[in-house]
Amino acid sequence: MQPTFRKIVIFGAGLIGGSFALALRKAGAVGEVVGFGRSQSTLDEAKRLGILDRIGSDVASEVCDADLVLLATPVAQMREIFARIAPHLGAQTLVTDGGSTKCDVVAAARGNLGDKLAQFVPAHPIAGAEKSGASAAMPDLYLGKKVVLAPLPENSRQSVARVRQAWESCGAVVSELTPEEHDGVFAAVSHLPHLLSFALVHDLAQRENKDLLLSFAASGFRDFTRIAASSPEMWRDISLANRDALLQEVKRYADELYVIHQALQNNDAAKLEEIFSLAREVRSTWTQQ
Amino acid sequence: MQPTFRKIVIFGAGLIGGSFALALRKAGAVGEVVGFGRSQSTLDEAKRLGILDRIGSDVASEVCDADLVLLATPVAQMREIFARIAPHLGAQTLVTDGGSTKCDVVAAARGNLGDKLAQFVPAHPIAGAEKSGASAAMPDLYLGKKVVLAPLPENSRQSVARVRQAWESCGAVVSELTPEEHDGVFAAVSHLPHLLSFALVHDLAQRENKDLLLSFAASGFRDFTRIAASSPEMWRDISLANRDALLQEVKRYADELYVIHQALQNNDAAKLEEIFSLAREVRSTWTQQ
Repeated sequence: MQPTFRKIVIFGAGLIGGSFALALRKAGAVGEVVGFGRSQSTLDEAKRLGILDRIGSDVASEVCDADLVLLATPVAQMREIFARIAPHLGAQTLVTDGGSTKCDVVAAARGNLGDKLAQFVPAHPIAGAEKSGASAAMPDLYLGKKVVLAPLPENSRQSVARVRQAWESCGAVVSELTPEEHDGVFAAVSHLPHLLSFALVHDLAQRENKDLLLSFAASGFRDFTRIAASSPEMWRDISLANRDALLQEVKRYADELYVIHQALQNNDAAKLEEIFSLAREVRSTWTQQ
Repeated sequence: MQPTFRKIVIFGAGLIGGSFALALRKAGAVGEVVGFGRSQSTLDEAKRLGILDRIGSDVASEVCDADLVLLATPVAQMREIFARIAPHLGAQTLVTDGGSTKCDVVAAARGNLGDKLAQFVPAHPIAGAEKSGASAAMPDLYLGKKVVLAPLPENSRQSVARVRQAWESCGAVVSELTPEEHDGVFAAVSHLPHLLSFALVHDLAQRENKDLLLSFAASGFRDFTRIAASSPEMWRDISLANRDALLQEVKRYADELYVIHQALQNNDAAKLEEIFSLAREVRSTWTQQ
């Protein structure tokens, strides 16, 4: 039986791209996997680990007959890749990505894919791990994890269905949002909390008595600030990539904080309890899906 | 051999008071434990569980010959208890407490203990558990945990040493801060993070699309908001009890947030990376003590 995807091409053979290839292999859904990337050592390792069948040398000849191209590089590199592949994409070749912001990736695609735009179905796999690189890739990374597709108005239903099929073959639970919805949702539930956690630790870090303060920090602080140990470069890029939605969220949050400040200032016990109670009710009934 | 504390009296036989009694018993450091409290059923249960030897009926006759009195009620009830015990405290009877704020408890003591003030050595055990009540009490609750003493200028060195001995007998690691230092430290590393976590969830909870938002929340959100499931009543009381220090912290944090907002607004990648990097460095080298 022919595999669902005869040939896929991966740009970036690290955790996201490598795991995608391994998952499709495990599902028997892919024939050949060809990889491109900036780091020769990552590509060599990916080949050694069985992620890649071949390391590509000529983009044009590889993407012209591929069934699917995955962009799994940092988002900042995608613009250039769109430009490189656009002239050579086969008529049946679909493109998807693994970027954690969507409006900026869509803008890069619109600016560089030309008349191949309809072949690009944006995606965001909500999966990560402490480690990165080809050696961290694993076939089960996406198993039971969410992947958000953010289709374009130009996409055909057939193209969206086929990209969905690829991610579902990796074991992911796929849902769809518009790129704008996607960025708004993740600004609120992921990007803002990261910013707030960085902000708290940064504020403490600048104080003369920071060692005293940190010596009395306990489990509440530990959990609240866990995400402040995340990669500064990655979060700088995500923050700027999703700048507009994130600025709105920061503004909203500052307003919320002002309300609490006023309640405290006015010794308004009822207001504080009302705010804390609604938060507790919502948080304690929430379960991670 | 005589136990270190021949007789102790506990106001509030729940998690904090009950564990204190059980720990001293386990250490062989206490003779008799007498309890008072608002809830007869808690007292009955504490007696049944071996926390109390007797349920007290007359405060005057119990506190006049006690070695140590522990106030382990909500902070809001301590003012009244200080007033009740003041006229009857024996000359050798020491008093300590388990409140999580200190300036307000000290103010209540100053206003109500009269010439017995020097006998009160304020304390804050940094220990808690998911559960509360007498049934949650355990002899090892304080083992290896921090207890902050916040001595008054009026305390004799001897009195401070003896109260320290009681908490150390429970297995705690005791340190000393002034009441003002204590409240400043905990506003920064505990009370502010709780407020910020409540604020984030409360903001999301009020939105029309809150179910959509929460369906995409993941492990970063989970950890950041764990403390937003804390008791609204308790955190209302702590926030108001430590209002002045907490207002300062909220103000500082709002300033910090404004700096980040401006960096984002100005697309200042270097500034964002600088902030995130310092936070990451401090958070990733911090270990809970």
